[in-house]
Amino acid sequence: MEQRFADLKQRLAEINDLSRAGSLLAWDQRVMMPPAAAAVRGEQLATVTSIVHERFTSPEVGRLLDELRPYEESLPYESDEASLIRVARRDFEKATRVPGELRGELARASASGYAAWQEARARADFELLRPALERNVELRHRYVECFAPYDDPYDPLLDDYEPGMHAAEVTEVFDVLKPELKAIVADVARRDPVEAGFLAGSFPVGEQRQFALRVLERFGFDPTSWRFDDTVHPFASSMATTDIRLTSRYKPDRFDGLFAAMHEWGHGIYEHGVDPALERTPLARGVSMALHESQSRLWENLVGRSRPFWRFFYPQLQEAFPEQFGSVDEEAFYRAVNRVEPSFIRVEADQVTYSLHIILRYELERELFSGALDVRNLPDAWNARMADYLGITVADDAQGVLQDVHWSGGGFGYFPTYALGNVVSLQVWERMLQDIADVDEQFARGEFRPLADWLREHLYRFGRKFTPKEALERVTGTALDPAPYIRYLRRKVAEIYGADETPATVTAGVS
Amino acid sequence: MEQRFADLKQRLAEINDLSRAGSLLAWDQRVMMPPAAAAVRGEQLATVTSIVHERFTSPEVGRLLDELRPYEESLPYESDEASLIRVARRDFEKATRVPGELRGELARASASGYAAWQEARARADFELLRPALERNVELRHRYVECFAPYDDPYDPLLDDYEPGMHAAEVTEVFDVLKPELKAIVADVARRDPVEAGFLAGSFPVGEQRQFALRVLERFGFDPTSWRFDDTVHPFASSMATTDIRLTSRYKPDRFDGLFAAMHEWGHGIYEHGVDPALERTPLARGVSMALHESQSRLWENLVGRSRPFWRFFYPQLQEAFPEQFGSVDEEAFYRAVNRVEPSFIRVEADQVTYSLHIILRYELERELFSGALDVRNLPDAWNARMADYLGITVADDAQGVLQDVHWSGGGFGYFPTYALGNVVSLQVWERMLQDIADVDEQFARGEFRPLADWLREHLYRFGRKFTPKEALERVTGTALDPAPYIRYLRRKVAEIYGADETPATVTAGVS
Repeated sequence: MEQRFADLKQRLAEINDLSRAGSLLAWDQRVMMPPAAAAVRGEQLATVTSIVHERFTSPEVGRLLDELRPYEESLPYESDEASLIRVARRDFEKATRVPGELRGELARASASGYAAWQEARARADFELLRPALERNVELRHRYVECFAPYDDPYDPLLDDYEPGMHAAEVTEVFDVLKPELKAIVADVARRDPVEAGFLAGSFPVGEQRQFALRVLERFGFDPTSWRFDDTVHPFASSMATTDIRLTSRYKPDRFDGLFAAMHEWGHGIYEHGVDPALERTPLARGVSMALHESQSRLWENLVGRSRPFWRFFYPQLQEAFPEQFGSVDEEAFYRAVNRVEPSFIRVEADQVTYSLHIILRYELERELFSGALDVRNLPDAWNARMADYLGITVADDAQGVLQDVHWSGGGFGYFPTYALGNVVSLQVWERMLQDIADVDEQFARGEFRPLADWLREHLYRFGRKFTPKEALERVTGTALDPAPYIRYLRRKVAEIYGADETPATVTAGVS
Repeated sequence: MEQRFADLKQRLAEINDLSRAGSLLAWDQRVMMPPAAAAVRGEQLATVTSIVHERFTSPEVGRLLDELRPYEESLPYESDEASLIRVARRDFEKATRVPGELRGELARASASGYAAWQEARARADFELLRPALERNVELRHRYVECFAPYDDPYDPLLDDYEPGMHAAEVTEVFDVLKPELKAIVADVARRDPVEAGFLAGSFPVGEQRQFALRVLERFGFDPTSWRFDDTVHPFASSMATTDIRLTSRYKPDRFDGLFAAMHEWGHGIYEHGVDPALERTPLARGVSMALHESQSRLWENLVGRSRPFWRFFYPQLQEAFPEQFGSVDEEAFYRAVNRVEPSFIRVEADQVTYSLHIILRYELERELFSGALDVRNLPDAWNARMADYLGITVADDAQGVLQDVHWSGGGFGYFPTYALGNVVSLQVWERMLQDIADVDEQFARGEFRPLADWLREHLYRFGRKFTPKEALERVTGTALDPAPYIRYLRRKVAEIYGADETPATVTAGVS
């Protein structure tokens, strides 16, 4: 049995090696590759992806997984060995459900959808995307059918990003969240706007990058295991737990690349913190998109937009940008980076409105897949909801329904994990406060390692050993619960705007 | 039949994609990777290499190659299709000769040989490498036996780098070359040394890199398809004909990184110049190591150490380094970068002594594999020949037999291609002069594109379609011939040292 396990582990290690080679091809494409190589690189990526799939879904892997059932059952649930077999079996069952032909069609539709989206967005014309989007929706319907029976056609889509979660659970959380967030937005609209003009101006890119790196180094960034590069769209990628790569972007006329850097740090430190014993296994990753996003949001917002963080860093920031911030006091700066302001573009949204952007997308996705909404009516539905949730009028599709790349590539089911990440980040945070009572004082002294260590101990090191639900339960002792997030936002808004801290509705925990 | 050909081509394209992913893993490892990832990256590289081998040597590929024989024969020899089948069959026959077990042992012996070499070189103690080297030699003997029958046990080793070439041919060339080179070295030793002290001094790394890039841009470097990075050991790599990556290194106290950059440019422009129709096939590479090296040497020496090259660039160099070169005239600089000076380290050797370093290694390799030399006697044999060929006394093994990495990894048969590259570079050059009579005037005006275009037209675009011999014959109309190289060196030495241009022996062409 040990021999069979060793065989499985070796096969999975090779598949993982290949998959990481694919990650490198993708990272390199965005960060290093000369642009003329785009077409060939696309082929290289497609080949590696397809060989990874072919090897993982091979009959030998299926046979080993079957034969190893008794071995798995003889081992403790939380052992690395049982976890590896269990997670690999789940991945295998999903991967073998979808016929190769459909997989190929999905990949092609995704590629042509992406091309159509670029064109459509450039011209702010949804009709240019519509045929490709209809094709994507149709193919995703066929994809969903591969996982029948299901409670809800949205469930198999969601499961790709948040394994084991059901649409009903998301809806339950969002049903609590939406009225709260709308109430906060309405409340803030009645207050005096927060001055933030000083965040625009002359901010040389090199100095912004240097300052961001200084912050990351305080967090624990170390060139022995990390890289930090520039890209148009910030992202994090890892080729090993000892090879974590972050990117950010800087505009010369705005101070903002730091927040993207801290966000990506959160993704990176999660994968860096996975137990090295899980290296080269499918467990050496974050457990789900929501849990991953909870960490990027935690480091970006709960650390990077906190008062004690700026207590430590603001004098250094003033020193780095004396002309821009020399005469702005810490309180004014703190309020500016925490201001709430409805806007059109999700990726530029603040902590309150961000989740409303997500709820809007989630609702439209649900309706597309329940049949309640036709693709052709997407722009109208989008614009109506933007007016309802954020009180703003979308001028054209480029700043509306065409702003995100996800749908053009067939990526339905991903969006809700962003908002769930916000929710989870506060659950983790509140639990952490029970153990590190003086976290504020630590931050004010520039000490962030105790937080990172706590997170590694309670979440990061397990990688994908447990389900997202189990992982959340292990950290927080509870299930998904929007209450901490709502409390946090209320408190923050009260602090920044002098608004009311009382919630709009009763925010009982969601079971 | 067309269907079978399409099938083969698709398989080879995927194998090529995977192999290029391996190239990226290797490039990244040397240029970008955080060092803590070294162990995992080693596994990733081993996995990709082994999957490439497994897929290429699959029975399906063998069957297709067999079935496609009549198709190949129905097509013109020089067609892309016939060439693809022919070259793939040759590669397949080689790849399937070596049992997987031996392949694995070779890889392991190579890895431990490399580790032993690092230790041995650091301590200048050959005995620390000896056991690993003996193991490498023993395994390579077994490797050679996979290719029996052969004329000479060295032939199968050489064939890995210079397909189709026999040791007897190399010996014939080196037998002509050696007395000539020794005579030139002896001749130069009687002349006044050339002043080159001004090449040492303060040469800021950033400015050296910038100047090197300026030269490459004149050659045709374009960031659309190229990268140019820093590494400890300069090298060239390509992930596609549109993705060519060069590196160089710069010492702050010496002007020298430019020559490495031009050398790597020669490797890069060769692969960049391959016909795009051959992309994603095994033909999209340089045809052999000697042909490859002929191009790096051509651009480094025949272009980059030429008088008209410096006629154009020297004023710019003086401008870039006014303190170092402001009072050095062009002639003095030209003589300095063309001086001949016996030295211990191959990679730092000049154009004359370089090939003697190679001939020494070739002779020792031949003797190791004929049984005439025992590994334990390598250092003595090395040192004796250094005294004979270059007139210098090796002080310790670090600057002697331990200087190169090749043997520690089992890389026997590679060295001679370096000297053959010098030989071929001059054959190509002399043929080019028949078509571009005013190449000197072009260089003096900073025009290098006509040369690059000529080389692409006559050599680069064919990739691996023809054998090395055919490729050489197509460019030059002749077989391998050391006479042009010897003429060039004689002329150069006469120019720099006022030495005699008459060759030491009659240098009839080698057939």
